[in-house]
Amino acid sequence: LALKGSNYAGLLERHRIHTKNVEHIVDSLRNEKIEVRLVKRREYNEETVRWADAVISAGGDGTMLLAASKVFDKFKPVIGVNTDPERSEGHLCLPVRYTHSFPEALQKLYRGEFRWQWRQRIRLYLEGTGINPTPVDLHEQQLSQEQHSRAHINERFQDQRSDISGPHLLPVRALNEVFIGESLSSSCLNCYVPDKAVCSVLFRENFKSCKPSFKFSLHRASYYEISVDDGPWEKQKSSGLNVCTGTGSKAWSYNINKVAHQAIEEILKIAKKHGGLNVPLNTELVQKVTNDYNESLLYSPEEPKMFFSVREPIVNRVFSSSRQRGFSSKVCVRSRCWDACMVVDGGTSFEFNDGAIASILIDTEDALCTVLLEE
Amino acid sequence: LALKGSNYAGLLERHRIHTKNVEHIVDSLRNEKIEVRLVKRREYNEETVRWADAVISAGGDGTMLLAASKVFDKFKPVIGVNTDPERSEGHLCLPVRYTHSFPEALQKLYRGEFRWQWRQRIRLYLEGTGINPTPVDLHEQQLSQEQHSRAHINERFQDQRSDISGPHLLPVRALNEVFIGESLSSSCLNCYVPDKAVCSVLFRENFKSCKPSFKFSLHRASYYEISVDDGPWEKQKSSGLNVCTGTGSKAWSYNINKVAHQAIEEILKIAKKHGGLNVPLNTELVQKVTNDYNESLLYSPEEPKMFFSVREPIVNRVFSSSRQRGFSSKVCVRSRCWDACMVVDGGTSFEFNDGAIASILIDTEDALCTVLLEE
Repeated sequence: LALKGSNYAGLLERHRIHTKNVEHIVDSLRNEKIEVRLVKRREYNEETVRWADAVISAGGDGTMLLAASKVFDKFKPVIGVNTDPERSEGHLCLPVRYTHSFPEALQKLYRGEFRWQWRQRIRLYLEGTGINPTPVDLHEQQLSQEQHSRAHINERFQDQRSDISGPHLLPVRALNEVFIGESLSSSCLNCYVPDKAVCSVLFRENFKSCKPSFKFSLHRASYYEISVDDGPWEKQKSSGLNVCTGTGSKAWSYNINKVAHQAIEEILKIAKKHGGLNVPLNTELVQKVTNDYNESLLYSPEEPKMFFSVREPIVNRVFSSSRQRGFSSKVCVRSRCWDACMVVDGGTSFEFNDGAIASILIDTEDALCTVLLEE
Repeated sequence: LALKGSNYAGLLERHRIHTKNVEHIVDSLRNEKIEVRLVKRREYNEETVRWADAVISAGGDGTMLLAASKVFDKFKPVIGVNTDPERSEGHLCLPVRYTHSFPEALQKLYRGEFRWQWRQRIRLYLEGTGINPTPVDLHEQQLSQEQHSRAHINERFQDQRSDISGPHLLPVRALNEVFIGESLSSSCLNCYVPDKAVCSVLFRENFKSCKPSFKFSLHRASYYEISVDDGPWEKQKSSGLNVCTGTGSKAWSYNINKVAHQAIEEILKIAKKHGGLNVPLNTELVQKVTNDYNESLLYSPEEPKMFFSVREPIVNRVFSSSRQRGFSSKVCVRSRCWDACMVVDGGTSFEFNDGAIASILIDTEDALCTVLLEE
């Protein structure tokens, strides 16, 4: 690790800090005679969740997403404690001070000095030809990546008799966002075939005849059709579609949509050139406009509405993007993709290729229960 | 294909059109007693380029990028003919009318009714620990993706004795852009290890112990340090870094940086609220500002300058992005990435992991020679 320039001492220290923080939480709970099961990431499952009255994640925001991913009960509280405040923002966790004084948090819970917060989550329906409604269960089978791809293909060809499958409700709920886009990892630019579906088949079945060096293209535009709130279908080509919750509006969605001070300044300069601004174009004005604009991208995790944004839309003769983003209650997407996925909270993915149709919406039954401590 | 909803009839028709267009070009050349070698993508190599006085690509912009990728001679003209005008924008090709009247283009060339155009290209130097300065040559070996990964690892461990390698000039020249970012395809979110380098090693060596379903995370922020024009090093976290040429300023870079009419409208509304605009905020003003702003992102392919842009910069306590984009003569990047690549023109990639340092610049010796016909 040192040879690679990695900071082994730093790694060890962060592990020590995390371990100490976890012990603090467990001790605080047991001191109150609360029964605690401490499970690591790989042992965490729905049976454990059923056993518990409440779930506490000890880690960063990623651990909180993982904790939430196995909770489907609207009345099972999930609480995050940030055990790595140096590295994680902890948006989804309790304020950082409780990491070292967890008994204080427990006292507030006992005294009712908190309120319940329901973070709305997104559900997904999948239908259409050749869909694969569950990730292949590799946990038990431990397939290699190549075997994994073949498993997907075998499953798909077996299912071809049931060409049209009715909408399947996927066994996931997105706490941050659903992202739809080309996987990119197995794009083949080498088979020069106009119809990507053909190349996809050729590529997978004749793996060896493609120059794998062309496979690592990072940027392949995603091609799909989108209908917002049951509106007209629109063909789009972009770097992907992000549909987030209020919780997720602070996450990846924010980074996709925020505008830099530098860009706002240039835009206002051009506006001034065309007609002038009443006030001088100074840093203060640019900062105010930048802050207001970027803040308008955020909304409450408890609002049962989604925010969709199209990432880097490609606008030309064929493709248009009437609205690059906006609020909605329902988003439907028809894949025309080659090798795409729907990725939930950056951690679980589903194939989403040509022929698949996804319906994306919020059902308040899927909300995640957490707490907001009084300050 | 029909079962998947793919348009087989359309595929066949586009192939027919392309084939007819290629025949037209070849016939036009042979009618002038010009010796023509017609090669398919897989047969195209540097020997063929050496044989030729000029290279004509028949396809879309992607084919032109491929044609240019084997030409390193500043005085070997490369001309693109768009044989698929329905599907390709043809930015890098001759105007579409010459596709069906190629003799007209030839006549202009004979009569000198054209000028030479030199499209500047980017060169890359790579140095640092554990670098792999060439893509593993899979063309001959036809390795599977898993074997490819292992080959990269074996090579890297063998090279550890030469820990610091002097700058290697990579055997590629970017006509559009160099993109640096996480590969994403083999990220492992499952090994909860704070130091990504450790997980990368564990992941590759203990492949089976990771749940591959977590591997398909599409979004992993790229972490690196950047120095522009020998300026101070800045740590950044983002969705990747794009460094383009004037040619590439119309390509992916444009899609990364352009601002939508919808966003300009909202920004101007906020500016108006803070101080007002002299002119009414109407569609016409918004359109003018939008057009001016987006046009400012484009520049001439012949200008020997690069344009860098940081895609979705993450701004927090640790990371900053003083300038999200700008012109430069030189960009240096130090990778702190887990499993990243440098991707040239969307087609060729180089590993770019923790310890590697890239220097990116334009040398006018690397320019690509093409023609601009008089209209």
